[in-house]
Amino acid sequence: MDSRVIEHAKILVEWSTEVKPGDQVVINATPDAHELVVALYKEIAKAGGRVVTLMQSEEALRAFYDGASDETLQVIPEHLRAITEKCDVYIALRSPVNTRALANVDSKRIMLNSKTQQEIQNIRLGKRWALTVHPCQSLAQQANMSLEDYRDFVYRATLIDWKEESKLMFEMKDHLERHNDIRFTGPETDLSASTEGRIWIASDGKHNLPSGEVFTAPVEDTVEGKIYFDIPFFQQGKVIEGVRLTFEKGEVVDFSAEKEESTLKEIIEIDEGSRRLGEMAIGTNRGIKQYTLNMLFDEKIGDTIHCALGRAYKDNNGTNESAVHVDMIKKMKEGEIIAGDEVIYSKGKYFYEN
Amino acid sequence: MDSRVIEHAKILVEWSTEVKPGDQVVINATPDAHELVVALYKEIAKAGGRVVTLMQSEEALRAFYDGASDETLQVIPEHLRAITEKCDVYIALRSPVNTRALANVDSKRIMLNSKTQQEIQNIRLGKRWALTVHPCQSLAQQANMSLEDYRDFVYRATLIDWKEESKLMFEMKDHLERHNDIRFTGPETDLSASTEGRIWIASDGKHNLPSGEVFTAPVEDTVEGKIYFDIPFFQQGKVIEGVRLTFEKGEVVDFSAEKEESTLKEIIEIDEGSRRLGEMAIGTNRGIKQYTLNMLFDEKIGDTIHCALGRAYKDNNGTNESAVHVDMIKKMKEGEIIAGDEVIYSKGKYFYEN
Repeated sequence: MDSRVIEHAKILVEWSTEVKPGDQVVINATPDAHELVVALYKEIAKAGGRVVTLMQSEEALRAFYDGASDETLQVIPEHLRAITEKCDVYIALRSPVNTRALANVDSKRIMLNSKTQQEIQNIRLGKRWALTVHPCQSLAQQANMSLEDYRDFVYRATLIDWKEESKLMFEMKDHLERHNDIRFTGPETDLSASTEGRIWIASDGKHNLPSGEVFTAPVEDTVEGKIYFDIPFFQQGKVIEGVRLTFEKGEVVDFSAEKEESTLKEIIEIDEGSRRLGEMAIGTNRGIKQYTLNMLFDEKIGDTIHCALGRAYKDNNGTNESAVHVDMIKKMKEGEIIAGDEVIYSKGKYFYEN
Repeated sequence: MDSRVIEHAKILVEWSTEVKPGDQVVINATPDAHELVVALYKEIAKAGGRVVTLMQSEEALRAFYDGASDETLQVIPEHLRAITEKCDVYIALRSPVNTRALANVDSKRIMLNSKTQQEIQNIRLGKRWALTVHPCQSLAQQANMSLEDYRDFVYRATLIDWKEESKLMFEMKDHLERHNDIRFTGPETDLSASTEGRIWIASDGKHNLPSGEVFTAPVEDTVEGKIYFDIPFFQQGKVIEGVRLTFEKGEVVDFSAEKEESTLKEIIEIDEGSRRLGEMAIGTNRGIKQYTLNMLFDEKIGDTIHCALGRAYKDNNGTNESAVHVDMIKKMKEGEIIAGDEVIYSKGKYFYEN
C-alpha cells in the first residue's frame, strides 16, 4: 500500500477524530475508497475503536431515485438514524465512481430526499466527524489530471503537520477577532463587512481534510462594495467563471459572469438569503496551488479568499438562511486582507509570515 | 446492466425478502458486489423500502485483526447492533475480492470476534434475511472457471421459478415427515438415522439464494452405518476429498480421507459435537451441475445428499452442539434415499419426477 494512504488514515484517526478505546466508529465510503477503508480499519483497531462502514454509491442512489415514489423519498431511514445515533465518530470518504451520476435526477427530488435526512445529518454534525477524499479517477478527471498527478495533489494538500498549521490558524483567528470588520481588496475588488458578534473559525483538519481556512459569517446587511471572483467553480452541474458582484446593504445589486451568467442568476434568485453572503473566509493551505473544481480543496487554496452566497453557519453566529451555500473564490496575491487597522495579508504574505 | 443482475435483484426483493412499503432494508455487500447493489436499490425503491448498505471487506477485516488487541475484539459493536435491530430486512451479498484474505489470521482470534458478534447475528436471523453471491473473480477462480462461465453458472442456479420449485420441495418435506427415519444408500454407503420429533425444512429461496435442499437434524445417537462423500469441500483453508465415515450410536468410530485426512481428523476432534451429525439433507437444485468449493451452491446440487458434522439447527428441533458445522456432499445417481417404506429418490429421480 502507498505509504501516503496509511499516513492519511493516521491523520484522520489520530488528529481529526481522536479515536480512543471503545469508540464506535462509522465510515461512510464509496467502493472506490476501499484502499483508504482498509488503512483506516487498522488505525482504528490500533486506537481501540470498533468500526462499521456504510457503502456510499452515487450510482446506487441514482437507481434508488429511479425506483422510488415521492412518498418513499419521505420515509425516514430509521436504521440509518439508529447507527448514526450510536456512533461516536463519523468519517466520510468521498470518492465517487462518476461525479455526474445524479445529473439526470430532478433537483426537487434530491431536495426532498435531503429534507427527509436533515435530522440524521444534524445528529452526525454532533459527533466527532471528518470529511475527506480518497484519490480516484472521477475526481482526477474533474481536476483535469491523471490519477497519479491527482494523488500527488491530494497528499500535498492533506499530509501536512496539522498541529503546527493549527497554531498559525488559531493565531489568525485571534487577530481577526480583535476587530469588528473585515475587508478584501485587489483588482476590481473592495468588499467590506462588519463581523461584530460573529465568530471566526479556524478549520485545522478536525473536520475537513484537507483543511486550511479561517472563516466567519458577516453581519448580513453590512456587506458593501464589489468583488471579482477569478477562480471557476462547479455548481448546479455547470462551471461558472469570472463572477463580479456588487453589494449594497448586504444585498447583491449587480452581478455578471464571464461564463454561465444565467446559472449565477438562478442561484442569486433562489430565495431571500441567496442574494446575501453567509460566509467570508481566508484560504491558507499552501499545499494547494491550483483549483480542481472540488470545493473541499479549492476554498482552502493558499493566497485566496472566498465568499459564499446563501446559508450561514450557526457556529459562526451567522443568521442568514437559504436553501443554498455557494462558495466563490478569489486569488489574493495582488490584494490585501484587512481587519480593523490590521493587515492580515498583503503582498503574498500572511501576517505571521512577516 | 446484464439483465440477469436485475432478475437476481427482483427475486431477492420480491420472493426472498418480500420488501413492502416502509420496510427498513439493510444490504451487506462487498465492493465487488456493487452492480447487484445498484440493481437492488431500484427494486427496493419500487417496493417502497428504504435501504442502507454496509460495506463488507475481507481485506479491511484482515487489517482490523492486524491492529486490534484481544480486548478490542471483545468490544461490542453497538452501532452495528443498533442498525441491525432497526431493520426489517437483511440481504447479504458475498463477493469477496480474495477468498483467502484471512488466511494468516489466527483462528482463535476469528472465533473471539465471532463470539463478540454472536448476539447481533441472532438478531439478524430474527429478521427477513437472505444470503446470496454476486459473481466475481475470486469466486470464479475458486470454482476453477472464467468469470463469464461463472456468471452463467450462478444465474443457472439462481434465476429459476422459485414458486414452482417451492411447491416440489414442500411436497418432499411432507413426504419425509410422514416417516420417522431417513436412509441414504449407494456405493460404499448405507447410512440411517431416526428423525422422530425432528422437522424437515424446505429451503426454497427465502433465505439462501440459490436454494434447493430439504434438510433436518437426525436424532443424535441414532446415526448408524457408513457413508462415502465423493465431492471435495473447502474447510479450514484446505480442500478435503474422498471422506469415508462409519457411525455407531451416532458417533464417528472410523474415518478416512483421500486428501487432507489430518484436517478431517482435526475437525472430528474439535469437541463432543463435532463427531456427531447435526444435519442430514437432500440437494434438489438441478440448475447446479458441478461443485465449485462454495457450500452455498455445492450443498444444493441436484442428485446429491449432504451431512454435516457438528452443530444442529434449532429450527429442525436439533440438539447437537458444536463450534463447527461442516457439510460434506455425496452424489446419489447410483444411490437411493428412503424414508420409512417410501422411496424418495432412486435411479436419478425424485419421487415427484416419476
